[in-house]
Amino acid sequence: MLENIDLSKVITNEEYKENMKTLQVELGELQRKAWELKIPIIIVFEGWYASGMGEDINRFILPLDPRGFDFHTMTSPCYKERQKPFLLRFWSRIPIKGRIGIFDRSWYSRAIIELFGKEKDELTLEKTLEEITFFERQLADDGYLILKFFLHISEKEQKERFKEIKRRGIHLILEEYEGKNGNESDFIDDYEEYLPVVEKVLERTDLPYAPWTIIEANDRNFAVLKIMARVSQAIETCIEKVTRTPGQETIKYLNMKTLKLAELNSSTLDKVDLSKNLPIEEYRESKTFFQSRLETLQYELFRKRRSAVIIFEGWDAAGKGGNIHRLVEELNPRLYRVVPVGPPNDTEKAHQYLWRFCNGAPMAGHISIFDRSWYGRVLVERVEGISTEEEWRRAYREINEFEKILAGSGAIILKFWLHIDRETQLERFESRQKDLKKRWKITEEDWRNREKWDEYKTAVDEMLQKTSTIDAPWIVVESRDKRYSRVKVLKTVVETIEKELGT
Amino acid sequence: MLENIDLSKVITNEEYKENMKTLQVELGELQRKAWELKIPIIIVFEGWYASGMGEDINRFILPLDPRGFDFHTMTSPCYKERQKPFLLRFWSRIPIKGRIGIFDRSWYSRAIIELFGKEKDELTLEKTLEEITFFERQLADDGYLILKFFLHISEKEQKERFKEIKRRGIHLILEEYEGKNGNESDFIDDYEEYLPVVEKVLERTDLPYAPWTIIEANDRNFAVLKIMARVSQAIETCIEKVTRTPGQETIKYLNMKTLKLAELNSSTLDKVDLSKNLPIEEYRESKTFFQSRLETLQYELFRKRRSAVIIFEGWDAAGKGGNIHRLVEELNPRLYRVVPVGPPNDTEKAHQYLWRFCNGAPMAGHISIFDRSWYGRVLVERVEGISTEEEWRRAYREINEFEKILAGSGAIILKFWLHIDRETQLERFESRQKDLKKRWKITEEDWRNREKWDEYKTAVDEMLQKTSTIDAPWIVVESRDKRYSRVKVLKTVVETIEKELGT
Repeated sequence: MLENIDLSKVITNEEYKENMKTLQVELGELQRKAWELKIPIIIVFEGWYASGMGEDINRFILPLDPRGFDFHTMTSPCYKERQKPFLLRFWSRIPIKGRIGIFDRSWYSRAIIELFGKEKDELTLEKTLEEITFFERQLADDGYLILKFFLHISEKEQKERFKEIKRRGIHLILEEYEGKNGNESDFIDDYEEYLPVVEKVLERTDLPYAPWTIIEANDRNFAVLKIMARVSQAIETCIEKVTRTPGQETIKYLNMKTLKLAELNSSTLDKVDLSKNLPIEEYRESKTFFQSRLETLQYELFRKRRSAVIIFEGWDAAGKGGNIHRLVEELNPRLYRVVPVGPPNDTEKAHQYLWRFCNGAPMAGHISIFDRSWYGRVLVERVEGISTEEEWRRAYREINEFEKILAGSGAIILKFWLHIDRETQLERFESRQKDLKKRWKITEEDWRNREKWDEYKTAVDEMLQKTSTIDAPWIVVESRDKRYSRVKVLKTVVETIEKELGT
Repeated sequence: MLENIDLSKVITNEEYKENMKTLQVELGELQRKAWELKIPIIIVFEGWYASGMGEDINRFILPLDPRGFDFHTMTSPCYKERQKPFLLRFWSRIPIKGRIGIFDRSWYSRAIIELFGKEKDELTLEKTLEEITFFERQLADDGYLILKFFLHISEKEQKERFKEIKRRGIHLILEEYEGKNGNESDFIDDYEEYLPVVEKVLERTDLPYAPWTIIEANDRNFAVLKIMARVSQAIETCIEKVTRTPGQETIKYLNMKTLKLAELNSSTLDKVDLSKNLPIEEYRESKTFFQSRLETLQYELFRKRRSAVIIFEGWDAAGKGGNIHRLVEELNPRLYRVVPVGPPNDTEKAHQYLWRFCNGAPMAGHISIFDRSWYGRVLVERVEGISTEEEWRRAYREINEFEKILAGSGAIILKFWLHIDRETQLERFESRQKDLKKRWKITEEDWRNREKWDEYKTAVDEMLQKTSTIDAPWIVVESRDKRYSRVKVLKTVVETIEKELGT
């Protein structure tokens, strides 16, 4: 979930002040309404050390009525707390109905620090995550609104902030709270080592009834506004749900003019550098090298009974076909198959969505290459209204679970998004239409899809952020230069397989 | 889930025929309606070998329209299936919308046989159960109705049936299907060894969207009727839900005169032998022995940092107070506490239900004894209408999860239901009212509760069946004879702690 986050977003002081003003009023109003309706709210703040949690939380709680919330700083447990089941010291601090419980650190970082840490004791991890889902689901079932924020900064940013913190002596407070040794300081310092643990915990606990929101926290203005906008929106939605009378149209409770949450979401695609390219000589050399390496690796995969799932998605005319062609050129057809995925037929539509993909999953030791895939649900089916919003929204979780099942049986999963800009697409469409040999490639539908570029872009960005997991990452491939694109895919496939097989 | 099942239920051939006639019509009708509404249905049959699954399924499917269901016998996987992720061979067999998929054995026994077996590889077990919940939840979210039956017989019954099976040569088919060696035949023979694995799997996968129904299969008539009644009821409920217009009252789709499912549920309380008693000499001797043993064990618990949670529930005047008194008589008050649980106060009511019990949970090395407990939710709150049906129904799962969290941190959990009959209660009430010293013990409320004996009995039976788990079993204590009752509790506590500590 942290992989495709754009940390470069900045909000100017003017923008901040202007929006803050309305958001403060809005949040105050919503808090009072939630109190009237006796809606209990739990807000969890987690994040990297030095991500600015303290200050951000402070700016966030200022507009709230201080009589209406409880603030909990969850540091090391005291002796008595350590003698009780881990979760109980959080359970015992849940807010009364109508109040807001704000947790500055929570069961999440405390579990990482106290229970499993970077050593990855998988069984402890599984059990703890299960207990956490019990806890949060029970609260949600009882009407609690649960919001979880993870304040994300880059390792580089963290290092710089640490310097500043030391210079100003703030680290002394931190050390007082968190201890100087053992797991506590480990978690503070070892960004790299903890990254996969944090990723895994976020992935596993991003649930419909208690979702995570990743906050880009390099810029403080941006972070605070996004937190406020998200909290406002969530409380508003919850109030609507509670007060709605059946059959009646939904009425927005508040509708002030502020930055909308959608505008505050990161776009991964925006920061892709499409100028990347590869000279033809280098291309030929690299292609030959990686293709031959892949030829060897396929037998290695087979011997070790590991399979691979390679998914290609991308804009029309981004070069999926050519890319797949280069990937399989030197492979043994007994060990790979290309699975083209089109619109579902009637039988497929009459089953649960993922049913149609059971057949395409590779056998142990084999490679399945998907030309388009189950991601159609959150791309074309979303944009064209083929799925209902309820269906495509839950598909993120369903897909992550499905890929987890594949990965659990030993599959190496790679997902490529071939990215080009709108102009490049237009050029390619036009050249296809002129070229008699290529004209079949272009249809009316392609032109129609092109009209909806922005809607697709939103869908792609959301997909990249919600379904990039440790076991099945998305790789955005800069594809304006076809040579660069093909080599990047080949190289990524080869290096990932090598790493997985330990060769 | 299998522990408190009464396997002695029998239905006569006349009763069977009469009910079968109406149920057949009803089921056929419901199947057609489900087809019209395009409701997909999955019915899973699991159970002990020789529990009669084959015959029972056959009697069950006869009234169905054969064009409307698919029947899958899930035996050992073929070579190709073995090369794919475990779940996919089941996923690929889910029914089309409107049809019924019947699984004769399923992902459950296949997972036990192929993946973890009796060796209890906990991590594999956790992962597989997680994958199964992904699978079933996704289907349920997509509108699939999922019903799971476990055909339960005793080990003794199984042994007798094996004899008969061998005599008639039926075991040859079984061997053909299931193989003669390895895990397959293991699972067939080792009832005792597999019981805890089966229990654990049933407990963990008994979910609101895909619940288990335990079928008492010693008597075939009973088994078949209960299966049919459960399927009818579930399809009917599902049809109601799908066709209901908001705001409108629920209309029963079918309402034929058959045995209702409630009448087919086991009563654990009915088979309790209340004549058990203990002569005074033996009582004194045993009491002294176990009390002194428990005194030693409490320090052992403390040294090993294991805690214990001992819950007392029971009829009014069943002897909870006297029992608790004997239990703690020789204990060190620094290591135990008695937590009396009454009706919740206002602050408690304003939190999620289990919040109020966080404080009473024992610290590591300590013993908490609950005089009444969180089970109030499914007993008094259910019967008196203090909780909504939605609340007390989901409490079974919440309580199981809460106890799992306690057990996960090392707590030994024992739950005693002190059982007496209605006449004994009356005698004790009357004697209390006559005795000035005891009159405080009896209130108007006790007399009111007594009026609702049958409703309480239903609630107790359901509680015993739904919340008796491996980690936290219910023990029904025959309490007409107070001496017998007290010694049984003391003995159970001592022996369980000894077993857990390995002393």
